[in-house]
Amino acid sequence: MSALDGLAPPPAAPLTVGILAGMGPAAGVDFARLFVRASENWLRSHGRPVLDQSFPEHWIAQVPVVDRTRALHDPQAPQPLDGLALALQRLAALGARAVAMSCNTAHAWHAALQERVASVELLHIADETAAELGRRGIGRAALLATQGTYRMGLYDRAFAAHGIQCVLPSEAARGWLMQGIYDGVKAGDMALARRRFAQAGQQVREAHGDVALVMACTEIPLALPDAPEARDWTLIDPSDILAVALANRAYG
Amino acid sequence: MSALDGLAPPPAAPLTVGILAGMGPAAGVDFARLFVRASENWLRSHGRPVLDQSFPEHWIAQVPVVDRTRALHDPQAPQPLDGLALALQRLAALGARAVAMSCNTAHAWHAALQERVASVELLHIADETAAELGRRGIGRAALLATQGTYRMGLYDRAFAAHGIQCVLPSEAARGWLMQGIYDGVKAGDMALARRRFAQAGQQVREAHGDVALVMACTEIPLALPDAPEARDWTLIDPSDILAVALANRAYG
Repeated sequence: MSALDGLAPPPAAPLTVGILAGMGPAAGVDFARLFVRASENWLRSHGRPVLDQSFPEHWIAQVPVVDRTRALHDPQAPQPLDGLALALQRLAALGARAVAMSCNTAHAWHAALQERVASVELLHIADETAAELGRRGIGRAALLATQGTYRMGLYDRAFAAHGIQCVLPSEAARGWLMQGIYDGVKAGDMALARRRFAQAGQQVREAHGDVALVMACTEIPLALPDAPEARDWTLIDPSDILAVALANRAYG
Repeated sequence: MSALDGLAPPPAAPLTVGILAGMGPAAGVDFARLFVRASENWLRSHGRPVLDQSFPEHWIAQVPVVDRTRALHDPQAPQPLDGLALALQRLAALGARAVAMSCNTAHAWHAALQERVASVELLHIADETAAELGRRGIGRAALLATQGTYRMGLYDRAFAAHGIQCVLPSEAARGWLMQGIYDGVKAGDMALARRRFAQAGQQVREAHGDVALVMACTEIPLALPDAPEARDWTLIDPSDILAVALANRAYG
């Protein structure tokens, strides 16, 4: 042991965290990619070496959860709460202290899940996004989301708490978003997804001007940034913001 | 219930599978991406709809495992077997019936892990790769890997079993590969990784002609395919082959 060891004790191991995903699986993997990138950025910005062993232990549950938007629309349809709670309990049993859900619509069950599994901190994608918009000084933003997310007002309360005005697409544009999500990204047709998401963005910008667009469904950032129309748009990715928040929790 | 229901019973749910990863974390996420793509391709090729719910449940363990190459080189260094076995047991407890390890060097402990956790099928990346090369009629291939993978002869037995001749890079080229893996991809310097991997590939091709290059370290496919020199090379990705094998196991 050298004299320097006493001056620079090794940093404590980061906390184990979890990712509750599979909604859909491609978006879940992309969220894990954002989390690994956020962890790497954290290490760099803190002058720590980027080694396999310096990343937080994290477990990714890619579980087949029933359709969230349909469950919100129709109380008789299969409901996702029990399946989500089981996966969250398993992540907690694996040692996860904080968990992020890589699906906006699934946050309809956020409070119920947090109540059922109190031993983990279940991050909230809208709260994290609104706080980040506040930090960036953005006072008005448009919400691109599923019908389920609009119906439950997922972002409304969080935006209001941070004094951010929320702008919504027209009914037609909401239909294009749903088509881009379901027939586009989830079905693997990325060209269709790009067209439909860009159409919706254009409708919002024609109606409300050059407003920041919050891509509040994990499928949208997989296609919209690649649409040529979106090149100069201000796109906000709540998944990326959530991934950074999860890395910050892991490193304490 | 219509008459057709009797003719076309709903397909059985796919098996739960696991991915033992974190070696490094970026490569682990990329393996998960390949698995999701392989599952999607399986669904399409079997005429099944691509829905969130038609993917196999899969759990990804991104655990901080001690350095595998160092452990092979120095028996006094921290050894990864206990950590890998614990993660594999946890994947088994989550219901995984088959597991893939997204690290070539970690396969040095494949037999020991399979013996400790007999309830899952632990796929073997070199066996799957050799079988696939055989199916493609490739009789000679060069191995781009870590020093640990060369030292333990991971691919030698599998290639021999399928009558495939194995070509090795020079000592200098092996050093470039290690630099591209550790100082390049694992440290986030992709430009360095591309240069070093391309140098190694060029050495092999100068010595052995237009031979297929097996990228037998999960970090190499994250950079080499983007090197301009590699545009016309035949690159084989064992991770992709392993991901397809895991999807095939899941769908039975």
